[in-house]
Amino acid sequence: MESIITVISEEPQLKDAILIEGLPGVGNVGKLAAEHLLDNIDAVKFATIYSKHFPPQVVLDEDCVATMVNNELYYAKNVGEGRDLVILVGEYQGMTPEGQYELSSHIIKMCTEMGVSTIYTLGGYGVGKMVEEPRVLGAVTTKSFREMLEPHGVEFTAGEPGSGIVGASGLLLGLSKLNGLDAACLMGETSGYFVDPKGAESVLKVLNSIIGLEMDMSELESKAEQVEEITSKIKDMESSQDPGRDDLGYIG
Amino acid sequence: MESIITVISEEPQLKDAILIEGLPGVGNVGKLAAEHLLDNIDAVKFATIYSKHFPPQVVLDEDCVATMVNNELYYAKNVGEGRDLVILVGEYQGMTPEGQYELSSHIIKMCTEMGVSTIYTLGGYGVGKMVEEPRVLGAVTTKSFREMLEPHGVEFTAGEPGSGIVGASGLLLGLSKLNGLDAACLMGETSGYFVDPKGAESVLKVLNSIIGLEMDMSELESKAEQVEEITSKIKDMESSQDPGRDDLGYIG
Amino acid sequence: MESIITVISEEPQLKDAILIEGLPGVGNVGKLAAEHLLDNIDAVKFATIYSKHFPPQVVLDEDCVATMVNNELYYAKNVGEGRDLVILVGEYQGMTPEGQYELSSHIIKMCTEMGVSTIYTLGGYGVGKMVEEPRVLGAVTTKSFREMLEPHGVEFTAGEPGSGIVGASGLLLGLSKLNGLDAACLMGETSGYFVDPKGAESVLKVLNSIIGLEMDMSELESKAEQVEEITSKIKDMESSQDPGRDDLGYIG
Amino acid sequence: MESIITVISEEPQLKDAILIEGLPGVGNVGKLAAEHLLDNIDAVKFATIYSKHFPPQVVLDEDCVATMVNNELYYAKNVGEGRDLVILVGEYQGMTPEGQYELSSHIIKMCTEMGVSTIYTLGGYGVGKMVEEPRVLGAVTTKSFREMLEPHGVEFTAGEPGSGIVGASGLLLGLSKLNGLDAACLMGETSGYFVDPKGAESVLKVLNSIIGLEMDMSELESKAEQVEEITSKIKDMESSQDPGRDDLGYIG
Repeated sequence: MESIITVISEEPQLKDAILIEGLPGVGNVGKLAAEHLLDNIDAVKFATIYSKHFPPQVVLDEDCVATMVNNELYYAKNVGEGRDLVILVGEYQGMTPEGQYELSSHIIKMCTEMGVSTIYTLGGYGVGKMVEEPRVLGAVTTKSFREMLEPHGVEFTAGEPGSGIVGASGLLLGLSKLNGLDAACLMGETSGYFVDPKGAESVLKVLNSIIGLEMDMSELESKAEQVEEITSKIKDMESSQDPGRDDLGYIG
Repeated sequence: MESIITVISEEPQLKDAILIEGLPGVGNVGKLAAEHLLDNIDAVKFATIYSKHFPPQVVLDEDCVATMVNNELYYAKNVGEGRDLVILVGEYQGMTPEGQYELSSHIIKMCTEMGVSTIYTLGGYGVGKMVEEPRVLGAVTTKSFREMLEPHGVEFTAGEPGSGIVGASGLLLGLSKLNGLDAACLMGETSGYFVDPKGAESVLKVLNSIIGLEMDMSELESKAEQVEEITSKIKDMESSQDPGRDDLGYIG
Repeated sequence: MESIITVISEEPQLKDAILIEGLPGVGNVGKLAAEHLLDNIDAVKFATIYSKHFPPQVVLDEDCVATMVNNELYYAKNVGEGRDLVILVGEYQGMTPEGQYELSSHIIKMCTEMGVSTIYTLGGYGVGKMVEEPRVLGAVTTKSFREMLEPHGVEFTAGEPGSGIVGASGLLLGLSKLNGLDAACLMGETSGYFVDPKGAESVLKVLNSIIGLEMDMSELESKAEQVEEITSKIKDMESSQDPGRDDLGYIG
Repeated sequence: MESIITVISEEPQLKDAILIEGLPGVGNVGKLAAEHLLDNIDAVKFATIYSKHFPPQVVLDEDCVATMVNNELYYAKNVGEGRDLVILVGEYQGMTPEGQYELSSHIIKMCTEMGVSTIYTLGGYGVGKMVEEPRVLGAVTTKSFREMLEPHGVEFTAGEPGSGIVGASGLLLGLSKLNGLDAACLMGETSGYFVDPKGAESVLKVLNSIIGLEMDMSELESKAEQVEEITSKIKDMESSQDPGRDDLGYIG
């Protein structure tokens, strides 16, 4: 079996396109942002990526029809200010370091060949406490690309995140640099303890500003309110037990 | 050394055959069902699969003759309503995700080449408590295949199993779909705490109905009674200590 | 880098030779036996096997000269009743299942090409308690080979060892069978808690009987006495604390 | 993706050059020593090594520009008594045994082709307690190379380090021996509990003596004083709690 099997249902003709990655990660910020984007533009699924670097598992749809764990690629043409988009989503990242490198390398190669010239990877930046107004931090492949992003609200702070960026959001950046593509990682601040739709909204607002797109955020906002309700209940329970405690500790 | 070594003693001429997989898993439900099936039809062993994805180990027979850990393939012609069967059994599944993918992929390729057109994988669905009347849940490669199975008592419930299907029973399904084969996973409900001949009996009854076969179940039934005796003793001991406790907790 | 690098200093001309494996394992029984054999015959080192399946490490000799972790092959001609011997020793086995398969497969291929036709793998059979008179259990590739071994004191008991044989001692047997070589594993009973020269002596006596060799065992015997002294001291300490305790528990 | 990707910005013309390795390890002694050396000679970076054997991660510089985790090679010509130097530094070693072997093998091959004939690997020797005057222990590929090093203060003691040398510092030695290169590992004694600039200074002094170089050590010395201050504070705290305690236990 090949390490990576890509099943392509349509070969889109794209020009100077943008790849947006939103795989699972810290607070699932990138995944939520990319999925909300997908739901609000006219995107077509064109490729499914299977790999022995994913868990050996099938998932079932509501009809109990099974599909092997995978990543999916969608495209949308002439979005916002006119750029074509490719969007990468999925339930899993590669399970091993080697798998991570092979999958990211495969995606860069495939997307370059179909006309992608810019990459935005979306993720969360875990700060270990609740965040009222999540900043969106950036990391880039070149200093000039950074200058293009700053007017849109991306913050670049030396030493944040101090440990660098792990997984697909990091590797797609690193491999873009090696291949001469412009790429940036947009990281929404998040506690890191919960799935975080608020962090996702922050990231998506910045991304929308960059690609000249507007969209309704009410679904993300209502999800954020639900999470906030739950976490504030837990907080109340905790403070009634231990009034001196400040942060949330690890929950779920 | 090749990753997978298949030693073939006979190349059966099969037509439109059915592969039945019964490797170890939750409650060993699939393994017990496939082994009972093997004991009750006129099946011939024709292939042994060795692999470096299995544990580095030999097992000994009653004469202390050693054989490397393996999976075995048997065939039987003109079974039940007339279909040819191939049956896959063994003591182990692949030890790593990569090994799982390679072994399942190898088996699909090999079986397709010898005339297999339909696959049933047998397994258990762990529900965490004792089950009086185990349902048999199904997962399929296509919706039309599901319609064929429902009259035989296979239940299809959205969201069960919620986590999908892990290991050979799942991958053989996923890879069948990629290769255009009809396949279904039949999962017998089981506590997941014990080897479960009762769950195996439920699965086998459904499978027999599908392939038009009848067989004596008394051996599985007597094994089920033995297990039930032991578990009810444990239950008694537990309830005498803690009368409010409802489920079994984790045993063995 | 190749997975396995074999540096050969001399290509011995052997005929119908016997390979004896004594790598580390339960109680280091096989390793001690093979090393004692090496010290008592006129053997010449002819090959060193390096591999990325071993730990990434060098060992130092008394001059602080470094050598990568390896396995070594020695030969001796016309030993005992006239057979040529090849002896495999080393400080490590392969670190992963895949590494175990690749190394054993490499050794079988290499030894077959240089004239080996019979293999004895030496090991320990951990029984979890002290053993006064260690039996030597056997496992074989064919029933007829078993008949040849029984007169030399090898015991064959159905169900022992119940879990089969793990590692090089097992795989060399399994791969011999696939390649049509006669092979047996000789396992000396041992507690499994200590390095066990007494178990090694039992195994070596049986092996010597098979190949028609006699040798002084006093070094193994004096090592066995040292171990016995230490363990009986520990036993005394334990029983003075807990007089009802029967076995040794896990030490070292 | 290739397992190892080497991006070369310049191909230096070297003759009879010396490779010096200073990757992370015990007390980061080798890394600190190699980095101090780099800061004090006129060295030029000429190659970057990326690999799927490193963590799947990018690191960020002060401008938030991302680079994949890597190892770097620098060269300097006509250093000290006139030898050319190649210096290997980085934040990570290979993450798996196989990765360690592949990376070390790749570096040996690459450096040999560009004219390296001698290798010094720098590391720490963890002794489990604070060391006032760290010795520099040596390990070599040949006895004659050892004789060349002894006058420069390298100590060779049978049985130290008893467990051999693990990782790049060991493998580069072992592979040098296989490839007929002279190589030595210089190990500065260190507690193993802290990053240890004092151990690094000892190693660098010996290396400087060997290659006929002099340099200012004040930066390493001031770092060593900072570490000493912190550790003596901890020691004070510990002895006030437990005056009978002699060693430091595990900190950081």
